[in-house]
Amino acid sequence: MEIEDRIRASFARQGLMTTLGARLDSAREGKVEVSAPIRPETGQQQGMAHAGLTFAIGDSAAGYAALSVMPADNEVVTSEMKIHLLAPARGTRLVARGRVVKPGRRLVIVTADVFALDGAEERHVALLTGTMVPVPA
Amino acid sequence: MEIEDRIRASFARQGLMTTLGARLDSAREGKVEVSAPIRPETGQQQGMAHAGLTFAIGDSAAGYAALSVMPADNEVVTSEMKIHLLAPARGTRLVARGRVVKPGRRLVIVTADVFALDGAEERHVALLTGTMVPVPA
Amino acid sequence: MEIEDRIRASFARQGLMTTLGARLDSAREGKVEVSAPIRPETGQQQGMAHAGLTFAIGDSAAGYAALSVMPADNEVVTSEMKIHLLAPARGTRLVARGRVVKPGRRLVIVTADVFALDGAEERHVALLTGTMVPVPA
Amino acid sequence: MEIEDRIRASFARQGLMTTLGARLDSAREGKVEVSAPIRPETGQQQGMAHAGLTFAIGDSAAGYAALSVMPADNEVVTSEMKIHLLAPARGTRLVARGRVVKPGRRLVIVTADVFALDGAEERHVALLTGTMVPVPA
Repeated sequence: MEIEDRIRASFARQGLMTTLGARLDSAREGKVEVSAPIRPETGQQQGMAHAGLTFAIGDSAAGYAALSVMPADNEVVTSEMKIHLLAPARGTRLVARGRVVKPGRRLVIVTADVFALDGAEERHVALLTGTMVPVPA
Repeated sequence: MEIEDRIRASFARQGLMTTLGARLDSAREGKVEVSAPIRPETGQQQGMAHAGLTFAIGDSAAGYAALSVMPADNEVVTSEMKIHLLAPARGTRLVARGRVVKPGRRLVIVTADVFALDGAEERHVALLTGTMVPVPA
Repeated sequence: MEIEDRIRASFARQGLMTTLGARLDSAREGKVEVSAPIRPETGQQQGMAHAGLTFAIGDSAAGYAALSVMPADNEVVTSEMKIHLLAPARGTRLVARGRVVKPGRRLVIVTADVFALDGAEERHVALLTGTMVPVPA
Repeated sequence: MEIEDRIRASFARQGLMTTLGARLDSAREGKVEVSAPIRPETGQQQGMAHAGLTFAIGDSAAGYAALSVMPADNEVVTSEMKIHLLAPARGTRLVARGRVVKPGRRLVIVTADVFALDGAEERHVALLTGTMVPVPA
């Protein structure tokens, strides 16, 4: 529970997450889930979720997965992140599942998969891989 | 002017750009500039611009740069994009400058640089490279 | 068996694979394995496998995984590829396992994991994600 | 000259560079050039330079550009690298020009452009961006 509390406190201070309507769904060691509604206010020109929304929650899930394996007095920043957009992000909600691929003292390699919930279907819409760096809190 | 009109019309339909307060500053063949204010509502936990904001306007500038070199009856979607975050995005405004590296019929390779305006200083805060794909409008 | 034959014929024409001592271990629909010895001739300055070797066999495994899901009259080229080097590539042999994440008519999104065999241990040394494009054979 | 000597000594210990026929053309602070012949032994199935060769010399040029801005008692390893292959690598020789985008104590962000020399023409065939990490020599 301590990990989740720490991540929840950091998440709550991210203005962008509030603006996007994003929610921290779960956080445990090495695995974090963040989701957000697909709405016109966060859409692109064809009515689907904007790549910027998909990136934001994927990056957030991946970053907090990294934070979950770091000592308690750290924050984490993204050094680099690549996103593949696999399919149109159509539906009602995006769910990003971040996890740690390789922990490290100086760098943490992370990945996230993003799914679009569309009725009963869960569609794989994005794959992210990146590098997180610890910084003093 | 026709290129700029076309891009301006598409930009206006992107709900996320409005939500982020983003603005299309200029658009000509192969080069597009998009900017947005740095505000608490689009910030991260340490008060700087969120990587999600930096990505969103960088991806947008790069995507519209690709659209500017495509035939008029196309839209463009991001296939993949990598962002390097080079420095903290501190200041009042982010400016993203997208350009085409390699045009193509099936793929357009693009890049964008993002700068943070902080008083009189313009700081290079991010570098993006990615692949845009034309889709029927 | 037809898929494996086709891939084996293409692999045999890649001079670099021969120079690196690489071998096509297996090829079935959507999954291909390529391996190579770790030798001084393909090493870096500290005696481990060079990132260039790890990339070459990872890219090859990923590319042939893409080819395995394309119509028979195609070849495949890499459009872009990102590699994360997770751990030193120490040992006797590198094994790359490529697979298709998302097939498509114009683009195939692929991934590969590379492992170093060191005695009885198999260590995860690299993760690749990229975009393959079909071209006429 | 001290920077170039240091890089030249490290380059000479990379077995793969010798195997590929690669040469360190120049090295100064923040900028390094590495080239290699395009030969059947380092080609792909259609007679052009293999992506693995293009990656290897691009990564090498970028890595040594990073090393050139580090204290003398370091070596450098690639943490991650993305390559975009922009055009077929046809011709007699590949030239990779690496440079530092953002130096740092813990991470150095680098880029490289690779060109194919084909008669009098120099064609831009690849763009790399990546992250280099210092390690004790």
